[in-house]
Amino acid sequence: MRIDIATLFPEICEAYLGQSIVGRARNKGVFELYCHQIRDYAFDKHRRVDDTPYSERQGMLLLAEPIWQCYQAVAADREPHVIFMSPRGKTLNQSKLRELAQEGRDLFILCGHYEGVDQRVLDKLGAEEISIGDYVLTGGELPAVILTDGVVRLLDGTLSQEDCFVDESHYSGLLEYPQYTKPQIWQGMKVPDILISGHHANIMKWRRQKSLEETYLRRPELLETAPLTDEDTAFLSELKARYEDMPEFFNKK
Amino acid sequence: MRIDIATLFPEICEAYLGQSIVGRARNKGVFELYCHQIRDYAFDKHRRVDDTPYSERQGMLLLAEPIWQCYQAVAADREPHVIFMSPRGKTLNQSKLRELAQEGRDLFILCGHYEGVDQRVLDKLGAEEISIGDYVLTGGELPAVILTDGVVRLLDGTLSQEDCFVDESHYSGLLEYPQYTKPQIWQGMKVPDILISGHHANIMKWRRQKSLEETYLRRPELLETAPLTDEDTAFLSELKARYEDMPEFFNKK
Repeated sequence: MRIDIATLFPEICEAYLGQSIVGRARNKGVFELYCHQIRDYAFDKHRRVDDTPYSERQGMLLLAEPIWQCYQAVAADREPHVIFMSPRGKTLNQSKLRELAQEGRDLFILCGHYEGVDQRVLDKLGAEEISIGDYVLTGGELPAVILTDGVVRLLDGTLSQEDCFVDESHYSGLLEYPQYTKPQIWQGMKVPDILISGHHANIMKWRRQKSLEETYLRRPELLETAPLTDEDTAFLSELKARYEDMPEFFNKK
Repeated sequence: MRIDIATLFPEICEAYLGQSIVGRARNKGVFELYCHQIRDYAFDKHRRVDDTPYSERQGMLLLAEPIWQCYQAVAADREPHVIFMSPRGKTLNQSKLRELAQEGRDLFILCGHYEGVDQRVLDKLGAEEISIGDYVLTGGELPAVILTDGVVRLLDGTLSQEDCFVDESHYSGLLEYPQYTKPQIWQGMKVPDILISGHHANIMKWRRQKSLEETYLRRPELLETAPLTDEDTAFLSELKARYEDMPEFFNKK
């Protein structure tokens, strides 16, 4: 997979994507990444990349033409999947990341900045708009890096055996159970006995129940779509009875 | 406001937060930011920051003690609001950012990495867990930067008059209307006539209706909580009638 990011701040994207697991995957050749400065594709005599919006509103919009030129120069011949990081887009989730990773098509990711982007270049590029969440950020760079990190983690060859955990929150549709490491007693707080019992089946059961409990208390709506066994459903009824008279537990964590 | 970020990758946080609007606000003294390397607070003889989780699972967890020592050294005397960036947390949204900005308390933001963090230090610190979305990322650094960017934008003095737009998606609880800049015709596509009419009231009405339409088609659930006027509600009924026989429009964008 090749990922091209078009932005006014390529150094922000490069700074993160050169490091950690994603940086290693890039160095190993798992994927290719190129960050492009949109300014380099402003070919009018003033080399402008932005202008005021039509009608009297404040702020600046990115012009269509430099973005279009950038796309033509670096991506058009490969017909990549074009994504515009935008608070107006569909909310990103793990299934969307999985879909993009499995699809395996090259990505051309456009980062907005200032007030936004001329709508016509989004229409022309057939851009899919994706939002990382319902909050306002300075630009599309962090969202583009989030999307890249999330997709690249799912490509074959990125995670080593040791990195590869399938129990993390949102992999299974549930939140993760609490975890403990050494020492057995820290500041007077003990690791739960069951985790040092060595009894594998009980530990697995404890983890599953803790995941269900965390999800029930913090994000109950996830239980509507998570794949659940009959045993899970029975345990959730127990939980419901247990917390029925304790509304103070909900959303408190 | 002072923000302390505790992480194994302080350079990732610094790289972004030194730039753009947030970097300028920091230089102007709107807020203070310090990124701390958790490794510097590992005082046992091996200077370990991580260890295997209890029971046989793969992966490494961050130890409680170095995080606790870091907190003691840099933040304990100010009793900041402690936040742990975690996919298990409550989902971040614009009201949460507004709450943190208005509260104005110092923040101590802990970034997880590897498989996670010993639960006991989260309990001890009374950490609030916040998630930026339902997807799996390599570490808590990008989420910490997202949170910082989102909060700092809302502090007095960060945005200049020119930066300060209240019509962006999620500020008003609705998605943003499409925007256009020069030239009036680009690749055969015209700017909507109304935007060059100069008729202020009509333009305002067009924008509001486009916001409502974008929200209705892309994220209809936002309409349940957005503040709406009677006129908005009437227009939404019209929209509903218009799209009733066109289910293909929904979530297509």
